[in-house]
Amino acid sequence: MLAERMTRLGVETAFLVSAAAAEFAARGHHVYPFHLGDMNLRTPENIIEAAFRAARDGKTGYCPSAGIMPLREALAEDVGRSRGIPCTADNVVIQPGGKPTIGKFLLALMNPGDEVLYPNPGYPIYESQIEFHDGVAVPYRYLEGAETFALDLDQIAAAIGPRTRILILNDLHNPTGAEASADELERLVEMAIDHDLWVLSDEAYFDIRYSGRSRSIASLPGMAERCVLLYTFSKKYAMTGWRLGAAIAPRAVADGVAKLNVNDESCANHFVQYGALEALTGDQSGAAHIVEVLRQRRDACVDALNAVPGVRCQRPEATFYLYPNVTALMARLGLDRYDDLRFAALEATGVSFCTRLHFGRPLPGEGERYIRLAYSGIDVDQITEGLGKLRDWVAAS
Amino acid sequence: MLAERMTRLGVETAFLVSAAAAEFAARGHHVYPFHLGDMNLRTPENIIEAAFRAARDGKTGYCPSAGIMPLREALAEDVGRSRGIPCTADNVVIQPGGKPTIGKFLLALMNPGDEVLYPNPGYPIYESQIEFHDGVAVPYRYLEGAETFALDLDQIAAAIGPRTRILILNDLHNPTGAEASADELERLVEMAIDHDLWVLSDEAYFDIRYSGRSRSIASLPGMAERCVLLYTFSKKYAMTGWRLGAAIAPRAVADGVAKLNVNDESCANHFVQYGALEALTGDQSGAAHIVEVLRQRRDACVDALNAVPGVRCQRPEATFYLYPNVTALMARLGLDRYDDLRFAALEATGVSFCTRLHFGRPLPGEGERYIRLAYSGIDVDQITEGLGKLRDWVAAS
Repeated sequence: MLAERMTRLGVETAFLVSAAAAEFAARGHHVYPFHLGDMNLRTPENIIEAAFRAARDGKTGYCPSAGIMPLREALAEDVGRSRGIPCTADNVVIQPGGKPTIGKFLLALMNPGDEVLYPNPGYPIYESQIEFHDGVAVPYRYLEGAETFALDLDQIAAAIGPRTRILILNDLHNPTGAEASADELERLVEMAIDHDLWVLSDEAYFDIRYSGRSRSIASLPGMAERCVLLYTFSKKYAMTGWRLGAAIAPRAVADGVAKLNVNDESCANHFVQYGALEALTGDQSGAAHIVEVLRQRRDACVDALNAVPGVRCQRPEATFYLYPNVTALMARLGLDRYDDLRFAALEATGVSFCTRLHFGRPLPGEGERYIRLAYSGIDVDQITEGLGKLRDWVAAS
Repeated sequence: MLAERMTRLGVETAFLVSAAAAEFAARGHHVYPFHLGDMNLRTPENIIEAAFRAARDGKTGYCPSAGIMPLREALAEDVGRSRGIPCTADNVVIQPGGKPTIGKFLLALMNPGDEVLYPNPGYPIYESQIEFHDGVAVPYRYLEGAETFALDLDQIAAAIGPRTRILILNDLHNPTGAEASADELERLVEMAIDHDLWVLSDEAYFDIRYSGRSRSIASLPGMAERCVLLYTFSKKYAMTGWRLGAAIAPRAVADGVAKLNVNDESCANHFVQYGALEALTGDQSGAAHIVEVLRQRRDACVDALNAVPGVRCQRPEATFYLYPNVTALMARLGLDRYDDLRFAALEATGVSFCTRLHFGRPLPGEGERYIRLAYSGIDVDQITEGLGKLRDWVAAS
């Protein structure tokens, strides 16, 4: 009954993990929620107040489809400075969230049959939207190193063919927390330029970092004109439920994306954009507090995970995700299926997490096993308590 | 450079009328804005307060993709009662505006090559989205009667063929203000059932009416299971810039639309949905006031238009649009092109309006000429003053 294309539409199967956790909680159990990337931190008060002032001030009618000009200007200034690229309001198209940039980027630039390179494991909406809009999704992988995950650049190079038109990069990567080195970025740039690729640089976690400085692939020579940046207010300012973000793109693409806005939702909420303007230009102590809280959680989480027999976990300097290797753990528990591990851990300890399966179909030859924990929605005491139970359960197995 | 499909994407050309008006105003002139369907009325205070109580109360994280359950339940109850159809929360998928329902309905139900009947003149996004997503847009028309515009049912019947799969109906119609009679609705229902059509019933103006009661095509026997309703909070509660609405659909379609939400924008703004919940379930005096103000404007506007030589204007009982016949006016002024009329009126009087051209390409054999005025964004004194100037200008011509 539904249109044929709907059979190609994917979901975020992480929601199924939420459902299982909710069902477990409904049976009277305590859940330690490491499964979803939502945040249990408050949006800074100055942002809420600014939005509310705007609503009371009558900013309740339509605004331009590309967003209110002061916000586009402020974001152009912020992104231009942090990425070191020329950027004006003409390059900024405000969206009702970070996510809408994925579909609109593909609609604007991908023709049916075009091949699109995307990370797997990775955010599942890339693959879903590529296939839904008649593209060919070509996965590339990350390789676990001693301290970080690295792009498998040789695999990417080998996967590029005459139909390859687009590369999706999620540097500061969900789920691995990986960050490309300067060398990796340069090799990616070389490939993008040699093969005339468009790049979607999903920079949702650009400002969620604990040391060092984020780099954008758009900063490298020859890239700004072939990059679309996914920007979101969701993480830095704990505004996930506000649904506000932007596509930052060369002028012609930005104009096309704005035309998609006219067709899809007219504009993002008007007064919410004044909240975002305050977020960018007002007191930054709220954002600093958020990162500091997340850093404490990361450390508690990494330490506790590495105390679990059979678990090996890196300590990424960015994102709020961990992607521990659980190959030895699963062998120790005599489990082969990811879902068996997930349900057994939930039933025995209340610890709820996603697995590699929630980030795309495993690729041929993939031997190591991984789970993904998000620490954005759980406090340090709960992290320690929950992962302590996990450790005790495993130790007793 | 952009994908081929972008050449099939339309816009709301009414924005060009705004641009011309803004340019005229920037030259120091006064503008009487009849061109855009935005509202210069305040969102009722209780709605604003409820939204921000929710934001302060921490409703700033993600919510379910289909919307918060209390709002889905309240809307199901409201729509079920007002349309006289069975409706539960399972049928309600909250959207970031009324407009997103158009594209999502087509993506969920229209296959490439399917023919879709849509009103012309009509809201230009129907045609744009049909063609953008590879459908075949088949226009149908309205015929001017003595007191109302009527659907050309014979034309619709003749246009239905083996590839016809969908009918888009915008009863309480933009731009004509037309409302289908019981007989018209019955004949449409017969066609929809006989030819097994899906119907998008765009009911954006269902609650903007000055006498009588709105009817939904979904209320008729056999229709609820083949209808998707476009609901919006924008007009009834003066919430255009809040961007909140819903698709109301049979369960299987609703599930598909919710899956599109997961892919497109995750969810609509969380705390805004609490404002909408207050709108539906709280004090209704704000909504009553809005309709009363609009009724006064309608009367002022219709009276003033009919005082302009060569203009003939009906008095619709719904919507906030007027679609006067200006055939005699254009003849009197010696103008043949719509844009010439529009620019001449703007330059001479400051009165800014849309024309038939902003609601689709004129159909073969279309002899009469029309303009469209919206009175949602202009007060009675400005209506009287502006249209008085228009009358004087025409009388002196």
